[in-house]
Amino acid sequence: MTSASAPFVSHRLATLRSDFATLGLDALVVTHLPNVRYLTGFSGTAGAAIVTDSRCLLVIDFRYETAARALTADFPEGLIELRLVERTYDDTLAEALLELPTGKIGVEGSSMTVGRFNRLAGELRKPENVGRVGDRILVPTERMVERRRAVKDAAEVQVLREAARRLSGVARRVPSLIREGRTELEIAADIDLEIRHGGFERPAFETIVAAGENGARPHARPGARQLQRGDWVVLDFGGIYDGYCVDLTRTLPVGQGRSELARVAAAVLEAHDAAIAATRPGARPSDIDGAARQVLTHHGLAEFFGHGTGHGLGLEVHEDPRISKLPGALPDEPVVPGMVFTIEPGAYVPGLGGVRIEDDVLVVEDGCEVLTNVPIGF
Amino acid sequence: MTSASAPFVSHRLATLRSDFATLGLDALVVTHLPNVRYLTGFSGTAGAAIVTDSRCLLVIDFRYETAARALTADFPEGLIELRLVERTYDDTLAEALLELPTGKIGVEGSSMTVGRFNRLAGELRKPENVGRVGDRILVPTERMVERRRAVKDAAEVQVLREAARRLSGVARRVPSLIREGRTELEIAADIDLEIRHGGFERPAFETIVAAGENGARPHARPGARQLQRGDWVVLDFGGIYDGYCVDLTRTLPVGQGRSELARVAAAVLEAHDAAIAATRPGARPSDIDGAARQVLTHHGLAEFFGHGTGHGLGLEVHEDPRISKLPGALPDEPVVPGMVFTIEPGAYVPGLGGVRIEDDVLVVEDGCEVLTNVPIGF
Repeated sequence: MTSASAPFVSHRLATLRSDFATLGLDALVVTHLPNVRYLTGFSGTAGAAIVTDSRCLLVIDFRYETAARALTADFPEGLIELRLVERTYDDTLAEALLELPTGKIGVEGSSMTVGRFNRLAGELRKPENVGRVGDRILVPTERMVERRRAVKDAAEVQVLREAARRLSGVARRVPSLIREGRTELEIAADIDLEIRHGGFERPAFETIVAAGENGARPHARPGARQLQRGDWVVLDFGGIYDGYCVDLTRTLPVGQGRSELARVAAAVLEAHDAAIAATRPGARPSDIDGAARQVLTHHGLAEFFGHGTGHGLGLEVHEDPRISKLPGALPDEPVVPGMVFTIEPGAYVPGLGGVRIEDDVLVVEDGCEVLTNVPIGF
Repeated sequence: MTSASAPFVSHRLATLRSDFATLGLDALVVTHLPNVRYLTGFSGTAGAAIVTDSRCLLVIDFRYETAARALTADFPEGLIELRLVERTYDDTLAEALLELPTGKIGVEGSSMTVGRFNRLAGELRKPENVGRVGDRILVPTERMVERRRAVKDAAEVQVLREAARRLSGVARRVPSLIREGRTELEIAADIDLEIRHGGFERPAFETIVAAGENGARPHARPGARQLQRGDWVVLDFGGIYDGYCVDLTRTLPVGQGRSELARVAAAVLEAHDAAIAATRPGARPSDIDGAARQVLTHHGLAEFFGHGTGHGLGLEVHEDPRISKLPGALPDEPVVPGMVFTIEPGAYVPGLGGVRIEDDVLVVEDGCEVLTNVPIGF
């Protein structure tokens, strides 16, 4: 059973449909590809879905016809209906919407572009289409599917647990790659190869290997800088396994490591442990973030921790929930069992270097389970 | 001099501004990241730009502050101004738009989401903001920057030529990877490693290795299938070099290769050569596509060639121009010197396998220059 077998797809669609009533929607046009995958099991570089109270149309182009037919062949009749794009996605979506008895049609405001919205609205408003089945309006919605995706079902937890186990295996081989004179890029290439060998489809993002002063940039790209004795090296890497992303960071010294950063590293580890200890059902993201931030503040490092403490993991490498106290667009709703996210406090000292320590956790009834399992290494 | 040094950035901004008059725009909000990179030189996973007649604001968040300051330090004063996000991108964009004496503000209809559009429009319409400097409206535009990006400047041609030279080096090592018993995934991992060793930042897309019947799917993902004697293997891979994408496909036999596909392979090669011969200034994309399609039709293979003949290459791996006669949203405008695109006809026979042959070409005054340089291999 994969993470997108019929019972799970069926349940995800039912859950989404239960949200239709709340918002008074008759349908949702799903254009964010991870959402399309979540709801239908289909993965491609293009595609869309239209979900109504009783039907789910998967709209794809010819490139994916064979794969989509193989996918839906395993599903019960009618669970997912295929619709092949004839000219453009916009035309096909509009035509499908005109066939369905829809009225208030939700679109995904965070993914649908203004261009597509206007083209679809234009089609539905054409004189020959007005009233064809009933009047239709397009209504932007926000995070309808993302909100549901934040809480993983049993199939997803199984995949994420296995993915984290495999990524931990990759991580345990990383210390042997760290040697004076090697470049960041060489080490990054080696890690990427280990990720492939670990059974991942591919790295979940561009692997970060940031040595010495480069470590002060949280999103440094690996370059030609060679590792020097005394450097600390931030190593942040992830993999995609059966579509699901896991993500891990360790910061390792080359030889002894500069003592100024050893102190920072100890503080970041303490912050990491505090955030994990704070992670339990009912805790708010700001509480978990606050637990890490409080430790770093105590050590005089608050100003060097410029990002949030974590982010959700799933079909996307950054998804809900956001474990942050930074002001943002997301509500600070308490975490619940089934959520999977990173805990990754860090401290970045310009000119000196940086430390980040990251693990992946699953919220369970009585706290959290740390899915990754790798020694801290310093 | 990199592909985004000051003279080129300056020229690109001037060219974009010359298009403002045509459309009656006072500003353009650039949200498509490759467009942001093209216009400012900044590359990150988030960011936006606001271009007016006299100013260019690069809007970034704290993660990229150091990198962006380093970038703009090399530019003449005022060419690019940095604006750091305080709360959210939307807030910062709205605030910046309210400060600038803008009236008709273009947004990128193919990239700006409905959600962001509505939030921005909402900010500009707030009673306290209406008339703050003047009335402002947001107007969706289409492909303003993309249209310019389709014609490469000297800096870009230099990068793409070097990238194609390096990818050709990778490709020449591929035949040694093809052996009976190896899996598609193993070969894909080897190719990815060669791409890294070739000096690329990373693969430009997920490497395709499709053996035997899997070759009949144009976008097959590599899997556990082992190569068997008699298979033909489609190998499609690309790399990103200094931000620019190149892309190459060869189809190689394992041992002798099934004779049915040898005939197909010969026809596809003939189509590939015909399309290259047809590529010159003034030719329309449909002419170039037609040259390949005519050959395949002659060989009775037209129905097995379901995609276009090529796509533009640059900061994105699929960009303008689209070399296709398939109905679509893009105008069939003649190609001009400076355009860089793939020529990649193929034939995909269900149950049997597929063949695709792809090279990258630069349109020059008297025809085209083939940037990739690899034996066809069969």
